[in-house]
Amino acid sequence: MNAERTKDDLLTPALILDLDRFESNLDKMARHVRERGRGFRPHAKTHKCPEIARAAIAAGAHGICTAKLSEAEVFAEHGIPGLLITTAVIGRRKIERAVKLAGVAPDTIFVVDDENNARDLSEAAGAAKIRFNIALDLYVGRRTGIAPGAPAVELAQRIARLPGLEFQGLQAYAGHASHGMTFEERRRVSLEAVSQAVETRCLLEKAGFPVPMLSAGSTGTYNIDSEIDGVTELQPGSFLFMDVDYARVGGRDSEKYSDFACALTVLTTVVSRPEPKKAIVDAGLKAFSTDKPWPPEAKDVPGLVYGFAGDEHGRVDFSQADRELKVGDRLEFIIPHCDPTVNLYDRLYGLRGDKVEAVWTIAARGRCQ
Amino acid sequence: MNAERTKDDLLTPALILDLDRFESNLDKMARHVRERGRGFRPHAKTHKCPEIARAAIAAGAHGICTAKLSEAEVFAEHGIPGLLITTAVIGRRKIERAVKLAGVAPDTIFVVDDENNARDLSEAAGAAKIRFNIALDLYVGRRTGIAPGAPAVELAQRIARLPGLEFQGLQAYAGHASHGMTFEERRRVSLEAVSQAVETRCLLEKAGFPVPMLSAGSTGTYNIDSEIDGVTELQPGSFLFMDVDYARVGGRDSEKYSDFACALTVLTTVVSRPEPKKAIVDAGLKAFSTDKPWPPEAKDVPGLVYGFAGDEHGRVDFSQADRELKVGDRLEFIIPHCDPTVNLYDRLYGLRGDKVEAVWTIAARGRCQ
Repeated sequence: MNAERTKDDLLTPALILDLDRFESNLDKMARHVRERGRGFRPHAKTHKCPEIARAAIAAGAHGICTAKLSEAEVFAEHGIPGLLITTAVIGRRKIERAVKLAGVAPDTIFVVDDENNARDLSEAAGAAKIRFNIALDLYVGRRTGIAPGAPAVELAQRIARLPGLEFQGLQAYAGHASHGMTFEERRRVSLEAVSQAVETRCLLEKAGFPVPMLSAGSTGTYNIDSEIDGVTELQPGSFLFMDVDYARVGGRDSEKYSDFACALTVLTTVVSRPEPKKAIVDAGLKAFSTDKPWPPEAKDVPGLVYGFAGDEHGRVDFSQADRELKVGDRLEFIIPHCDPTVNLYDRLYGLRGDKVEAVWTIAARGRCQ
Repeated sequence: MNAERTKDDLLTPALILDLDRFESNLDKMARHVRERGRGFRPHAKTHKCPEIARAAIAAGAHGICTAKLSEAEVFAEHGIPGLLITTAVIGRRKIERAVKLAGVAPDTIFVVDDENNARDLSEAAGAAKIRFNIALDLYVGRRTGIAPGAPAVELAQRIARLPGLEFQGLQAYAGHASHGMTFEERRRVSLEAVSQAVETRCLLEKAGFPVPMLSAGSTGTYNIDSEIDGVTELQPGSFLFMDVDYARVGGRDSEKYSDFACALTVLTTVVSRPEPKKAIVDAGLKAFSTDKPWPPEAKDVPGLVYGFAGDEHGRVDFSQADRELKVGDRLEFIIPHCDPTVNLYDRLYGLRGDKVEAVWTIAARGRCQ
């Protein structure tokens, strides 16, 4: 990489990370969990980038979460320790891969919520003469998992009889709590969800199962879940980058959630000026994810309104801005939703001011298996 | 590749192409344009895959379109001839790359709609002692381009004075015509749009500019634009794969658009069964694009209703289906919108029945620059 490269040299659309903001976000979260005596296993599905995982470890994380097996394989190849795969690994072919992964990264934790799946893992572990670290995935977030309380305890008991599986604890991800529009709403929903997990933890320990881990938390609930006794570690992801979606919710101490700064943007170029007060930029729905109702937001030029104009283009209305746009102008946009937008790019340009200080490969991009 | 691999061996989510349907779609379109005496330059932004570009050339295409410069670079590396880049190449760094591309693929056509951009291209061509083939991008589709008629003729005249640029003709893509809900609506809109391009072509020829190319057409208007005298070639893309979005519009001779078959699906696995009559599959908004209002549609099991459940998961309601779903079941879904969904995957599995006959790299995936 040419050390003299600046933002102006980047081909657009380009995914850009403000390194000062990113480092500040990471430090702030790491300090928060450290001060509360919790563990820190930030979710790598947000960034899919080994360099960022390494930065998290250096900041005090004892590992990272990945959403899927194939994502975990990439981080294991890059020597990242303490992997927790937050989706169950189902089916013969994937379990063959899980055996290999557990061979090279034996501290990896696999979640289960289904007895047959646990049995498949146990058999594969036996055949390969390895052990799988297992956590129960609890249904506290309206998505996956075994119901907390008695059903979870019963499943844990059945799993305990299966050889080759080492029970490590619980995962309790409450996604529906993370985006509540006020802090109070998030607090109410998250306390309700996570307290079921804490209760399950107690029941399990009473039943004779030590539960070293209870992994919970998100960017929206980190300062809620970290106050709950029984939660051992947090697994937030978006705080590293932030996005329009998270920036819209309310904060604990302020009207707007400003705990972490928007560090991630997409740099675009005006490629056509066919209509009055409207410019076409070279970034459309292959450059920004479209799963949220809000569009990208211009970072530096007030009054610009972006609208998607197909796969490859966006239409920027500048009738409310104090400047004209012309072909060749470059515009930076804060992204609607960080995780799926990062997943569109092969690399991330780390900028210090206007200088390109780092080019990081999004090595687990596309690894949704 | 193991010749014995079947669909059951694929890790999910997997992007799957039914090769029989794909080949039939390609043959049908190729025959259509050939019988009407038009050229055929199908748009590769849909598939981003050199093997598919090669199949199109073998079926009679004289080239392919790409949306962006970086996409064209990939196809040039793979030896695909007749590239037309349908977005203007703006800025010093991109023009440096365009010079290199024109060196290895001298028949590449670049579109322009801005005099300064044409001047930049001309200067770069002069410095590198090459020539750029240029087409005027016409504003007939509510996106990019110079206004048809007098403004286009005037721009052509200015460009003609610039050394190093070889005028090849016109591009007239009317995206707003392609998804009209009835054939008659698409016909009305496309005739209005494309007739302006044909008129501009006549004006240019009267003014002494031969216009060898007028490139138009989409999957929604191929059998409209191919009937318009003056259109020299079609550039449809989605017909190769089809999707929920195109399958919803009306056909010319039937209520539903059934000209081409849905050939592309995503194979998923049920990973959790936490609620009655609902199953969680391992494919969410990193596995399907979300830019259309309709969700993925189950291919083989009637009555299933898919809903997005985050980045990595989908929630499948099977209360209206005639079977239960259990962890480990595999479900195939027709995708909402083909282009941005393909852009999420690194490879495409070509299936003949259940046998994996081909594994094609989506080599230009992520190339939105």
